[in-house]
Amino acid sequence: MTHDSRPAWRSYLTHLECTACGLRHDADQLQTVCTACGKVLFARYDLNSVRQAVMPREFASRRWDMWRYWELLPVRDAANVISLGEGLTPLVRVRKEATRKLGFERGQLELKDEGLNPTASFKARGLSAAISRARELGARSIALPSAGNAGSAAAAYAAAGGLEAHLAMPRDVPELNRVEAEVYAADVTLVDGLISDAGRLIREQAPRNGWFDVSTLREPYRQEGKKTMGIELAEQGGWGEACLPDIIVYPTGGGTGIVGMRKAFDELEALTWIGRARPKMIVVQAEGCAPIVRAFQQGARMAEPWQNAQTIAAGLRVPAAIGDYLILDAVRATGGTAVAVSDEAIREAQLEMGRLAGVYAAPEAAASWAAVGALRRSGFLDGDERVVLFCTGMGLKYPPPIP
Amino acid sequence: MTHDSRPAWRSYLTHLECTACGLRHDADQLQTVCTACGKVLFARYDLNSVRQAVMPREFASRRWDMWRYWELLPVRDAANVISLGEGLTPLVRVRKEATRKLGFERGQLELKDEGLNPTASFKARGLSAAISRARELGARSIALPSAGNAGSAAAAYAAAGGLEAHLAMPRDVPELNRVEAEVYAADVTLVDGLISDAGRLIREQAPRNGWFDVSTLREPYRQEGKKTMGIELAEQGGWGEACLPDIIVYPTGGGTGIVGMRKAFDELEALTWIGRARPKMIVVQAEGCAPIVRAFQQGARMAEPWQNAQTIAAGLRVPAAIGDYLILDAVRATGGTAVAVSDEAIREAQLEMGRLAGVYAAPEAAASWAAVGALRRSGFLDGDERVVLFCTGMGLKYPPPIP
Repeated sequence: MTHDSRPAWRSYLTHLECTACGLRHDADQLQTVCTACGKVLFARYDLNSVRQAVMPREFASRRWDMWRYWELLPVRDAANVISLGEGLTPLVRVRKEATRKLGFERGQLELKDEGLNPTASFKARGLSAAISRARELGARSIALPSAGNAGSAAAAYAAAGGLEAHLAMPRDVPELNRVEAEVYAADVTLVDGLISDAGRLIREQAPRNGWFDVSTLREPYRQEGKKTMGIELAEQGGWGEACLPDIIVYPTGGGTGIVGMRKAFDELEALTWIGRARPKMIVVQAEGCAPIVRAFQQGARMAEPWQNAQTIAAGLRVPAAIGDYLILDAVRATGGTAVAVSDEAIREAQLEMGRLAGVYAAPEAAASWAAVGALRRSGFLDGDERVVLFCTGMGLKYPPPIP
Repeated sequence: MTHDSRPAWRSYLTHLECTACGLRHDADQLQTVCTACGKVLFARYDLNSVRQAVMPREFASRRWDMWRYWELLPVRDAANVISLGEGLTPLVRVRKEATRKLGFERGQLELKDEGLNPTASFKARGLSAAISRARELGARSIALPSAGNAGSAAAAYAAAGGLEAHLAMPRDVPELNRVEAEVYAADVTLVDGLISDAGRLIREQAPRNGWFDVSTLREPYRQEGKKTMGIELAEQGGWGEACLPDIIVYPTGGGTGIVGMRKAFDELEALTWIGRARPKMIVVQAEGCAPIVRAFQQGARMAEPWQNAQTIAAGLRVPAAIGDYLILDAVRATGGTAVAVSDEAIREAQLEMGRLAGVYAAPEAAASWAAVGALRRSGFLDGDERVVLFCTGMGLKYPPPIP
């Protein structure tokens, strides 16, 4: 008898809704994007019933993973959950010397260390949700393109759940991502090109072979997993009016992190578990691939694809994001901003985070650290904020920042 | 305001006691081993007062790391805790196909995935405890020998807390352990030889330079961190008479995991939070370095040092353990056993765990998986037990089990 068996499991998922045209879709069949306009589908829940069914303080005594929030997640039968212990990541408070270095004498810096997830990145959350739900709806094999960590996570969850995984990755993906995928017995195709080229291959082969495509925002549930990062911030902050930080800094490739957290905060406000205040959302990209930053600066609603994308931060090398309009909306609605940092600044930040915070972060996360320093110097941040930096993955899988 | 600030922090640590001669030592000074006989010191607590101060169900609403059990940990002031989010690791239930493969049709296999700790191994727990307490008692620099992961963890906690770290590691330590240590700005000396040779170097240099030596069981608090693995099993099992598994399988180098968990169970029983029943403790070593297994089979109370230790499981390449008598006591007192597995079986088990469980485990942990299969075939296990395998670290840092 383990402690997760006590309260009755129930998902309050009701339907799927197109984020662009509003068209309603049946949630209890496998769905991809909007059947009318091809845009992103969001899962919707019966929040009035959730509010009557559970009080936020009850979550604490449940299982030690993101599935403790089952009312707000899409899996209907607990037996269908494929879990490796994703979520419930710590908020690591950075010591004073480090915060001073970044210009936050009076403020506070915390790292939400997503590197402590299975397969060492935040990708575990989305793929636990998507693959669990896909299996629940009958899928027996999944496919996706990946710049690295999503492939590792998909392969792990498919193995844990007994599904086949088919991955396409750029040939120059970090070596350890390929190794992981193969240890999990995934079928890996290396592609000359970027994640967008890998994506084309998957979209061509998946329907032909009966694979269910779990590409970012091309199915509705990965972001439900990402949403739990936002719910956790509320629980870690003690729920209520003042539980969220002032600033969230998030390295952004496909953008489900930002999009999922914004959705979480909207649902939590509807539940009256948090107030109206929202953290400013700050998108961080690499100078060599910054389509969202460019669109933000131009005041565009969508982002043009980036040509010749290049950066050491493999997860940021995403030239076009299907959820571009959702990311840009989230940044603008919260008074946030979007910044790009150089590979050189990323490498320096990796060493600085190691030395001052004791966290060996992936380059994507180090980009966020560098961005915080830059935004403080530019005056966008004034140094007394409570800032949460998302450390989206561990540094181990990448070429080391030292000789 | 975060949720860890609510209830009042208090450690009920009273004194240190020699595990061999019983001599009492002052806990509020830096101590190493027994000043009289040189054996291991244990931290002792005022358990009667703990029992009056807290009920086990209260832990659930505290912080998401091992420090939620502060009454039973040695740090007196919460401000001295150096935390990166260690502990609260999941119990991952392995799917039926995998349990059948190992011969457990009726039983249950769970992986306690310690790879989800900071620096990707269980070593984080011990070093968070030891370095926090050392800093509290005035240490400004720490030193230790390491076969790999302890060095990574020590370097990370020292960096997070603003202490200097001095490490000695075998020259052929896994490359990524060295990289991590250097990212955390530790001072690393590579030694020709094994961890025992590295240990000699540290014991020679530490007193000369004023470094505090945090070698395994040569200071009293690393095992207090390890102890939390046992407390967590009780919390994850819902406390009470039947909360613990039937079997604990633990890969054993220096042995603090086994020793710490036994200590946890004794304290929890004294608190009446668990019953008298104990899991059988099974020690797993590698055929190329199995001093505890040999001593167990010979009925010896201590273990002779192993000559020419060699195995791909870097963490098991510990030819002599200062806590040998404590490990052997724990195995015998619980009706457990000790087994050695070959490097070939370890490599196969790594791939099998990946394919069937979705966990890419370090070779040490894969040794445990292999041992469970072997013990089922030998009849020591009869297949209907609830078995918890400790997956002590992630596989990422080691040479991959595939070409």
